[in-house]
Amino acid sequence: MLPASISDYRELARRRLPRMIFDYIDGGSYAEVTLARNVADMEAIALRQRVMKDMSRLSTAVTLFGEPMAMPLALAPVGMAGMYGRRGEVQAARAAKAAGVPFCLSTVGICPLEEVGQGAGTPPWFQLYMLKDRGYMRELLARAKDVGSRVLVFTVDLPVPGTRYRDVRSGLSSRAAGPGANVNRVWQGLTRPGWLWDVYLNGRPHVFGNVAKAVPQAKGFNDFWGWIGANFDRTVAWKEIDWVRESWDGPVVLKGVLDVEDAREAVRAGADGIVVSNHGGRQLDGVKSSIAALPRIADAVGGDLTVLMDGGVRSGLDILKALALGAKGVMIGRAWAYALGAGGQPMIERMLGTLRAELATAMILTGCTDVQHADKTLLDAAV
Amino acid sequence: MLPASISDYRELARRRLPRMIFDYIDGGSYAEVTLARNVADMEAIALRQRVMKDMSRLSTAVTLFGEPMAMPLALAPVGMAGMYGRRGEVQAARAAKAAGVPFCLSTVGICPLEEVGQGAGTPPWFQLYMLKDRGYMRELLARAKDVGSRVLVFTVDLPVPGTRYRDVRSGLSSRAAGPGANVNRVWQGLTRPGWLWDVYLNGRPHVFGNVAKAVPQAKGFNDFWGWIGANFDRTVAWKEIDWVRESWDGPVVLKGVLDVEDAREAVRAGADGIVVSNHGGRQLDGVKSSIAALPRIADAVGGDLTVLMDGGVRSGLDILKALALGAKGVMIGRAWAYALGAGGQPMIERMLGTLRAELATAMILTGCTDVQHADKTLLDAAV
Amino acid sequence: MLPASISDYRELARRRLPRMIFDYIDGGSYAEVTLARNVADMEAIALRQRVMKDMSRLSTAVTLFGEPMAMPLALAPVGMAGMYGRRGEVQAARAAKAAGVPFCLSTVGICPLEEVGQGAGTPPWFQLYMLKDRGYMRELLARAKDVGSRVLVFTVDLPVPGTRYRDVRSGLSSRAAGPGANVNRVWQGLTRPGWLWDVYLNGRPHVFGNVAKAVPQAKGFNDFWGWIGANFDRTVAWKEIDWVRESWDGPVVLKGVLDVEDAREAVRAGADGIVVSNHGGRQLDGVKSSIAALPRIADAVGGDLTVLMDGGVRSGLDILKALALGAKGVMIGRAWAYALGAGGQPMIERMLGTLRAELATAMILTGCTDVQHADKTLLDAAV
Amino acid sequence: MLPASISDYRELARRRLPRMIFDYIDGGSYAEVTLARNVADMEAIALRQRVMKDMSRLSTAVTLFGEPMAMPLALAPVGMAGMYGRRGEVQAARAAKAAGVPFCLSTVGICPLEEVGQGAGTPPWFQLYMLKDRGYMRELLARAKDVGSRVLVFTVDLPVPGTRYRDVRSGLSSRAAGPGANVNRVWQGLTRPGWLWDVYLNGRPHVFGNVAKAVPQAKGFNDFWGWIGANFDRTVAWKEIDWVRESWDGPVVLKGVLDVEDAREAVRAGADGIVVSNHGGRQLDGVKSSIAALPRIADAVGGDLTVLMDGGVRSGLDILKALALGAKGVMIGRAWAYALGAGGQPMIERMLGTLRAELATAMILTGCTDVQHADKTLLDAAV
Ligand SMILES: Cc1cc2nc3c(=O)[nH]c(=O)nc-3n(C[C@H](O)[C@H](O)[C@H](O)COP(=O)(O)O)c2cc1C
Ligand SMILES: Cc1cc2nc3c(=O)[nH]c(=O)nc-3n(C[C@H](O)[C@H](O)[C@H](O)COP(=O)(O)O)c2cc1C
Ligand SMILES: Cc1cc2nc3c(=O)[nH]c(=O)nc-3n(C[C@H](O)[C@H](O)[C@H](O)COP(=O)(O)O)c2cc1C
Ligand SMILES: Cc1cc2nc3c(=O)[nH]c(=O)nc-3n(C[C@H](O)[C@H](O)[C@H](O)COP(=O)(O)O)c2cc1C
Repeated sequence: MLPASISDYRELARRRLPRMIFDYIDGGSYAEVTLARNVADMEAIALRQRVMKDMSRLSTAVTLFGEPMAMPLALAPVGMAGMYGRRGEVQAARAAKAAGVPFCLSTVGICPLEEVGQGAGTPPWFQLYMLKDRGYMRELLARAKDVGSRVLVFTVDLPVPGTRYRDVRSGLSSRAAGPGANVNRVWQGLTRPGWLWDVYLNGRPHVFGNVAKAVPQAKGFNDFWGWIGANFDRTVAWKEIDWVRESWDGPVVLKGVLDVEDAREAVRAGADGIVVSNHGGRQLDGVKSSIAALPRIADAVGGDLTVLMDGGVRSGLDILKALALGAKGVMIGRAWAYALGAGGQPMIERMLGTLRAELATAMILTGCTDVQHADKTLLDAAV
Repeated sequence: MLPASISDYRELARRRLPRMIFDYIDGGSYAEVTLARNVADMEAIALRQRVMKDMSRLSTAVTLFGEPMAMPLALAPVGMAGMYGRRGEVQAARAAKAAGVPFCLSTVGICPLEEVGQGAGTPPWFQLYMLKDRGYMRELLARAKDVGSRVLVFTVDLPVPGTRYRDVRSGLSSRAAGPGANVNRVWQGLTRPGWLWDVYLNGRPHVFGNVAKAVPQAKGFNDFWGWIGANFDRTVAWKEIDWVRESWDGPVVLKGVLDVEDAREAVRAGADGIVVSNHGGRQLDGVKSSIAALPRIADAVGGDLTVLMDGGVRSGLDILKALALGAKGVMIGRAWAYALGAGGQPMIERMLGTLRAELATAMILTGCTDVQHADKTLLDAAV
Repeated sequence: MLPASISDYRELARRRLPRMIFDYIDGGSYAEVTLARNVADMEAIALRQRVMKDMSRLSTAVTLFGEPMAMPLALAPVGMAGMYGRRGEVQAARAAKAAGVPFCLSTVGICPLEEVGQGAGTPPWFQLYMLKDRGYMRELLARAKDVGSRVLVFTVDLPVPGTRYRDVRSGLSSRAAGPGANVNRVWQGLTRPGWLWDVYLNGRPHVFGNVAKAVPQAKGFNDFWGWIGANFDRTVAWKEIDWVRESWDGPVVLKGVLDVEDAREAVRAGADGIVVSNHGGRQLDGVKSSIAALPRIADAVGGDLTVLMDGGVRSGLDILKALALGAKGVMIGRAWAYALGAGGQPMIERMLGTLRAELATAMILTGCTDVQHADKTLLDAAV
Repeated sequence: MLPASISDYRELARRRLPRMIFDYIDGGSYAEVTLARNVADMEAIALRQRVMKDMSRLSTAVTLFGEPMAMPLALAPVGMAGMYGRRGEVQAARAAKAAGVPFCLSTVGICPLEEVGQGAGTPPWFQLYMLKDRGYMRELLARAKDVGSRVLVFTVDLPVPGTRYRDVRSGLSSRAAGPGANVNRVWQGLTRPGWLWDVYLNGRPHVFGNVAKAVPQAKGFNDFWGWIGANFDRTVAWKEIDWVRESWDGPVVLKGVLDVEDAREAVRAGADGIVVSNHGGRQLDGVKSSIAALPRIADAVGGDLTVLMDGGVRSGLDILKALALGAKGVMIGRAWAYALGAGGQPMIERMLGTLRAELATAMILTGCTDVQHADKTLLDAAV
């Protein structure tokens, strides 16, 4: 199958990855209501078909946080990407560079900051989790600076991890031990020989690269998750932004703001940007979709900081919808995770090319010549 | 499979129980419209994701009817639980005690009041049906007092039993006799050897423990259902609360109020509490969901008596939704019935642990530090 | 399977009847949108659960058009019922009598008026189609009078038959001829040996009993349908009611009024009653459901004539919903057609018993002691 | 199976055509949201059932752009129809003539203008795409005039082709080359021997008849699509209508107007008509359905030019709905494409006969005697 849509990359990833890993990417928390809303609400938005407009000039380029980008999109931070493809974060960062968009490295990536920066030839954006061990955080931020990272994405919607039922069932998050669980894991691996060769045998080391030093005694993911789980800091409040500022002089973007009151707090706290996000439906299930939350937030704080959004972006048309509702750009999580699982860097490049072509087509057919001028007039009020 | 969600416990119960018993638990009355509404309406409610709040302190504890509870939840009265697991009511009462929440024993439980009180080491709440035989009712209430029960849950939505089509089809309620029906029953049992050993052979006596004395000649469930069916009293009106008060000096909670006018009557009649409930979609099909009925009722009488709700609670997130809409606590029926069928007391304990963890996570992610302060600000008005 | 719900009778009929006949009963016209609406809109209506009302007295009896009835329900006219069960109209009329409700014989029934009147021991209501051959109509009306029929149900929504796609596909209405079509029919019959014996071999003659004399040369259904199809009179307008009155001195009920303007015309034309109906979704597809049309019509003309409704009644709860929305009674079509196909008179009796029990239960649980006092207060305004 | 509904013709086409071709007809662009909306929104509209109106006279005839038509319907331009049936455009044009309705030939038809005009004995309407090569466009328009075409349908919603994911997957539009892709194509063909004989072997030449001269070196569809794809002109703006007028003195109809502002521009630009259309959900996915767009547009410009609509018309009832909402006529795309694939001209004739009969029945049952008087009173406001 030639993948045409994100759902095709998803299908290819499903065939290539061990079930446990695919489910980790694909799933959401609890009953996956918010995950479904992210997609359904995006789908329900109606673009306006306009005709007979001279579209000889067409620009998808933007500049966000001082960085010029080929289109208003960044690869969202995604944990353990090195388990979906060999040294996955490096492959993704290269694909992003080729497409002219930023790649954001997760705190819990497999490849460390240094490997990604070097491997891609461009420093990634860096995503930080609120951990109790402030010394470790400071050190991490310093490493990110050293690598050359400019933008810090500070994820605020995970003071405690939401439960993803699929991971409990698959045994990924339940830390199930004993022979039964192991047999199951081995079995899942053996039925995916492509992955076994590419990732399991040739994609090592399988450690959380950015955290490895802090957990020297770790023997496997359980140990890493254990350390991280025990280190999520649920006491972090708005004033901690000041603490972050002390260690970071570049732009700070708060990822995981879904409420207009929190967005206003983010302005007060001096953030440079926010990502309207519910963590891709992976944290508090039952909250509204990002796209539904976006308009009010963009109206309230769009003049004060840069508003991005993520969650449910599955095509270039979705990008235009988000821009029309007030976002300056979007992040994509699953889209690139699926593509990585489907076939590494080439698949991610193909996918990004498709998204950009779709965005351009959507602009032509709505009569929008410059992506920076996208606004509500591109949408149909009453559908 | 490691059960992660209530739907997993349901699936495990489906595999372990004879079809007839599973359907009795799982089904609702008539076309099961209200049963579906209970779950769908709960799912449609949107929590508000809040970030950057100091959640170092977190309390799920409440005191209801003078009883301190680890979380605002009680195990709802469920008939014939002793048929889902060996001496099921005792197992459930023990699990409830371990989790620090009350267990409410049904009039039509398999284990009698005395066995449950003794077996669990704590007296259960006791649920009463309106039966014509007032002498028997008085005697039952006296026994409950003797056992030490403090809270009386008086079920008012069953002056006549609604028809559950599944039970007619399975033969459970149709009192089908003759060799065909018996062969079918035996067959259903034989295909569930785990249940056969645990419940059928080792879980006897299979009588309605609380009613057994009143129907000494009963030879099987048909005789018990016959006696009870003939004894439901459809003439009971509000003034009968006075009659109950004569035999009961503890808190009286009316279970099955779904209408705001009836809720006001309950206040007038001097009830200590109500359970906003449609009997889990097992009585009048087509009535609205409990969660949809809750807000108006809580607004109207929440200041006058303790408002609980049940119906459709399938996760800790649902508990928080109910509290946010005005309930002081919830009851769960199917959730524990499934867990009992899935594996007895240990499974119920696991399930209750999950619900509490989910409640805590939901509180952290909505920025609610004390479950007693949950209110509408935790919800998103417009979804 | 013991049939519990109408859907169970449907399933039994599906197993017992040749596909072509089952589809004739089950299907609607065109895309079956209205058929689906009839059921879905009924399901969406919410009853109000009320508690603690003294329900010692309970009456489901009504008097319609001067006839006392055990419950406010009549068996709707249904064509060719003699093909679903041996002398089907007679069996149904007997079952109706046993249940204390009227049976309405269709113009295009298999059994003629005389056979039904004699066989059941009570004259049926008689349903008339608007046919061009007025002489034949007059004769028919005279026969109905002779048999003792009191109520004339004049069907006004079939000036031309709507297309039922299923009947075209099955070959029933397409008058497909040739060996292929016949082989298909024979095959359908052979796979249903019960029906073959009961209806095909022992249920003859298979003619349209009421029309037989007018089409003496008819050799099969195609000839009858041909004659009838060519005789539907699309010129009939309101003044024709006067013509009907000349030949009929009993109550005249217009079946198939779905629009409030037509309802007002019916009053002007002097009708005694109307049946709010879309012919069970078998005529103009895409029109609204009967239950959706009912309230406005009942408000407008309920004081001037007797308003009945049909379409989508699948339980006793549905009957109460229709009454609450202004109907004085309902008709059921498919419900009894399925039951007849499932097992003849005994099944229809069982089904009618169930409907009545369901109606009674619904009354008790909504606190309605007399079916004649059912009104909007039984419903929940906001669901 | 005797085809009764458009969905039946669809099913027959699915069985008869190679998957790749069926998917080309059946599919829409991107996630096919608009494709689904076209049908769902049409289905949701409620006709009004009226009774007792004298329907002796009934007319479905209209005159559009000076041409008398048996019913207000034209066959929409559809690309490559000669691949669904042998010389498909000629067969369709003949069927249209037999039914008394216009056939509109696509720029990218297989049969050229001359073959269609001659083969059908009537000149077709001609559909033009905006291509960069103005010389070629002028030549084409001259050929259309020579053939006798009167009405020019200028498609304005395709300045760039939307992506149809199905065509990418099937390889049709992805220009996949190499042995794998060819084997797949051959395989799809071999499994459809009827099509192989009728179209592949005996339906040649397989070129884009109207374009053939411009791409003399073309060896296959890929070359044609390549030329066309490179020639779509995205700079065309409203003033180009003047350019068209210079080469065409007959009526000019703009196809693909979905927005009321564009409709007003069309009036200003002097168009004779517009087709409210989203290209059958094949261009900008996510835009609203044509039927939803129609009323506002008809209100705004219905007095100034002739408003047609297409998209989602699947029955004669749908035609009446569109007329009731302000269209003077409809076009059908997939309906005739399916019928052609199902069995050529005879199937298209049968299908058109069905649509007309359905339209007539819908008129009788709504009490509409003349299709030209159809208006909003035929619809139910509140469903
Ligand atoms: C498999 C996976 C892992 C993720 N890991 C992280 C992470 O480590 N840090 C983070 O801030 N967000 C993480 N997210 C959330 C994404 O950054 C992003 O918010 C989300 O995926 C957007 O929704 P989408 O998947 O619908 O595009 C993860 C998402 C997925 C799907
Ligand atoms: C299998 C089963 C048996 C029940 N038996 C009783 C009972 O004996 N007495 C009673 O008051 N409620 C009974 N109920 C209703 C429950 O107490 C409770 O109201 C309902 O289960 C709540 O809905 P839920 O199952 O969605 O949590 C029963 C419910 C179920 C599922
Ligand atoms: C198989 C079948 C045959 C019918 N034949 C007639 C008929 O001969 N005359 C008539 O007035 N209505 C006829 N109807 C319509 C019914 O009288 C009634 O309006 C309709 O069935 C009510 O909808 P329900 O089936 O949902 O109860 C028929 C309906 C069915 C299902
Ligand atoms: C297979 C196919 C090919 C089409 N090709 C053309 C075309 O060449 N030119 C054009 O203007 N429209 C084309 N259309 C759009 C149709 O003219 C029409 O707008 C659409 O099919 C209407 O929607 P419907 O298919 O739901 O009736 C095509 C549609 C289909 C389904």
